[in-house]
Parts: sequence; structure tokens; C-alpha cells
Amino acid sequence: MTLKPGERIDDLHRKGRRIIQDPKRFCFGIDAVLLSAFAKAMPGERVADLGTGTGIIPILMEARYGGEQYYGLEIQEESAEMARRSVALNGLTDCIHIFTGDIKDPPSAFAAATFQVVTCNPPYMNEGGGLKNAYGPKAIARHEILVDLAGVVRQAARLLQFGGRFYLIHRPHRLVDLMCLLREYKLEPKRMRLVQASAEKEPVLVLIEAVRGGRPMVKMEPVLMIYGPDGDYTPEAWQIYYGEANQP
Amino acid sequence: MTLKPGERIDDLHRKGRRIIQDPKRFCFGIDAVLLSAFAKAMPGERVADLGTGTGIIPILMEARYGGEQYYGLEIQEESAEMARRSVALNGLTDCIHIFTGDIKDPPSAFAAATFQVVTCNPPYMNEGGGLKNAYGPKAIARHEILVDLAGVVRQAARLLQFGGRFYLIHRPHRLVDLMCLLREYKLEPKRMRLVQASAEKEPVLVLIEAVRGGRPMVKMEPVLMIYGPDGDYTPEAWQIYYGEANQP
Repeated sequence: MTLKPGERIDDLHRKGRRIIQDPKRFCFGIDAVLLSAFAKAMPGERVADLGTGTGIIPILMEARYGGEQYYGLEIQEESAEMARRSVALNGLTDCIHIFTGDIKDPPSAFAAATFQVVTCNPPYMNEGGGLKNAYGPKAIARHEILVDLAGVVRQAARLLQFGGRFYLIHRPHRLVDLMCLLREYKLEPKRMRLVQASAEKEPVLVLIEAVRGGRPMVKMEPVLMIYGPDGDYTPEAWQIYYGEANQP
Repeated sequence: MTLKPGERIDDLHRKGRRIIQDPKRFCFGIDAVLLSAFAKAMPGERVADLGTGTGIIPILMEARYGGEQYYGLEIQEESAEMARRSVALNGLTDCIHIFTGDIKDPPSAFAAATFQVVTCNPPYMNEGGGLKNAYGPKAIARHEILVDLAGVVRQAARLLQFGGRFYLIHRPHRLVDLMCLLREYKLEPKRMRLVQASAEKEPVLVLIEAVRGGRPMVKMEPVLMIYGPDGDYTPEAWQIYYGEANQP
């Protein structure tokens, strides 16, 4: 396994899994870790991850749940190539497959109604204008430059079988857009959870599970607090981040 | 002030305000108190409360904010009559006006686009069937028997001026219905807050402020916890309930 200049290998604290990252490009954040813990995959299920970046979500989900086959789709070839090397580094080439392609028009491996699970940690920002470098890897991952929320939801709806589950993380200020778009595409939100840094802070993230063809009625889970009153990770946040290690 | 058999007078812990209730009919709950604290009214604004019951929300809001004129609409004449007596008991007949009428077809005092604020603590249950006594006062207050969510939202949209604010409390499992209906009627949710009994419990209520003709983008507030880890009221919940009294 050769690393390119600027790359490093990070431990994922789960089943010995590791990931290749380049801090000058894009490193995964708390959101990818939270989404991979909120999402569920059962043995035999096929999972598509839209905008997989360096493959963090399939690698973490495989470590948590197994499942049969993960298909990661990434538009930036450099990120996809790093993801492929991370998959090989973990010995997972039989079950995680990384494709280079566009969420709006994915390659043929992403056939309609052939997935039981779709995950996505999409760009959050819906104001792409005025960026210094709108085509840099960080900008593409963070801003709706190459795909917007409707494009992501439309593709998730296309890929999922009836009853299949779409797991998404986003910023709470887009909640109404999210609810209305998901229902429009017959992806009914069935489970939701807000994430707060601490008790007195506003929620910064929202996790959503939507079911293809599901009936109206959403189950809200208790807010996930990252830090307790003492400023340390809450036990739940610690477990999500550092799974196997003991909290000091 | 004469009380009827079964009635009692309860202290509202705010500016000496009191309310007449009959426990055999319906007593206000935590939701009315939370909504009246979440809602805001500014001097000179006209406020309509849809389904005002015994008038709890106008009486609490007048104590908190003043405001110019409150119009309460209640379909059950017995409740409306109790509300009128409570308004008189508090010496508020100049600023709180209680009308008997149907949210779906209100009396002429509720003219289109003449209010800056609408509040509603609607019936939560959307399954009215199978009730023992579907026309008892508690059933009408709790179940969508005489008006459903769409009927409430439609009337709020009709009553509000452009830029006016609709304050609503409901159960979180209806969140997607709420978001989609509000947007459909051009009442854009702009501020939301979930309410949990305690940190590990699921949210039981959601408070929403929607603005007539507002632009998309909702501000989520920190979750409101009712009880702390010690089992006592949190300071914020205590303040909402008991305003002037010191927490023991």
C-alpha cells in the first residue's frame, strides 16, 4: 500500500478499520460517523452510498453491520481512487465497490429499485455562489455545486426498492425542505434525530430515516448530545466515535 | 363571580391571573402553558386563538406580553361561557373577547387578513373512530372530530396578514404532515422547538412558529427539557410554569 504525498492513514476505532485521507483535500467529519451509526444494514442487503468521498460511510457501516454489498458513488476521481485504496487496505474488495460517477446520472451498477438501503451525507450549503474555488474538493463536498438536495432525493427514490430505507444527515435549517422533498418523492420520513453539541446549544445536525412507500407518522428519537455538562463526550457520543476503546 | 357545581378556580402563577376549570370537563395542560411561552405578541397586535377552550392561552399571553386585543374562538358553548367568566374574573373584558363558533367557518369578528398573530393548541389525535364518547368535551379537545389539522392551518392562513405569525403545538409524530401542510398554505415554519420530559426520553411535543409568506429556512431551538437528571424541573421549565415563584 503506497501513500501519495500529503496522505495519511487514520484509525477508525472499529474492527481495526483504517482510512486514507489527505487533509489538504477533505477529511471525514462527525456527520459521516453519526450517519453510519444511525443507519442500519441487515445481512443480505445491498447498500448504495451517494457521494461517498473517501469511502468512510461504507467502511464504517461494513464494520458495524456487515451486510452483503456496498456500492459507493463519487464524482471526484481522486477521492474515488483514495476510497478504492482504503477498501483494499482493509481487505474489503469483495464487499465494497467504489464507482466514479454523477449522482444525477449514475453508472449501470446503480440500477433502479435494486437497493434495500441508500445512504447520503450530502453537501449542506445551498448557496454555492461567491466561492473562491467552487471546484475544489472541499467546496464540492460542502456546497450544492454539482448536485442539490432534490437531485440526491430523486436518485435515492430511484435506487430503492419499495420498503427500502434512505438514511440522510443534514442541517436542521433545511428541515422543511427535507420533509417536503422526501414526501414528494414517496420517501416518507419514519425516524428522526436531532444532534446538539450540548444541552443549551441549538441543534446542528438532523438524522433522517425515510422509507420508500412508507405511511405518514414519524418517530422522533431523543436528541443526541455530543458533550455533557462536564464538557466531556456523553457516553453515547463516545461509543459512536470510539466504539471499542474505553472512555477515559 | 359564581361558580357552577364541579368548577374550581386555579391560580396561574403569573400577575395574579386565575382561571375557572371543571376537572370533569377539561383542564388545561402543559401544552397550553408551553405554547403561551413560546408564542410572542407585541403591543398593538391582534391575536386570534383557535379552539381556545376555557381561554387559557389568551389569559396567559396577555399576562406575559400584553398586546392589544385577543380573540378566542371556541365551538363548545359551555367552555366558551367558562372562558368569558374567567376573562371577567381577571378584569380583562376590554382586551380578551371570547366567541362561540367553528374554526372551519368562524364568526365575522374573524375577518380575513386582520390578525398579526394566530395561536392554536389543536386536537392531536387523528384517529377519532372507536371513541366511547366522541362528543364529550375531552374527546372534542383531544381528537380531530370537529376539525382536523388541515382545517386549522387553512383558517390560520386566512386570518393572518402577510408576515403574520402562527404559533402551534403538536405531537412530533405528525411533524412531516405539519411541515408539508404549513408550506402548502404559505405558512413557512421559521422557528421550531422539541420538548422532552428528560434527556433519555423521546420528544413528546413540538412547538412551531410559521410566518405567512416567509422564506424557507427554519431555526431549530435547543430541545426544551422538562425534568433534569435529578428529577426536578429544569430552571427553564420551572420559569415557564411558575414564573414568579421561586424554585424550591
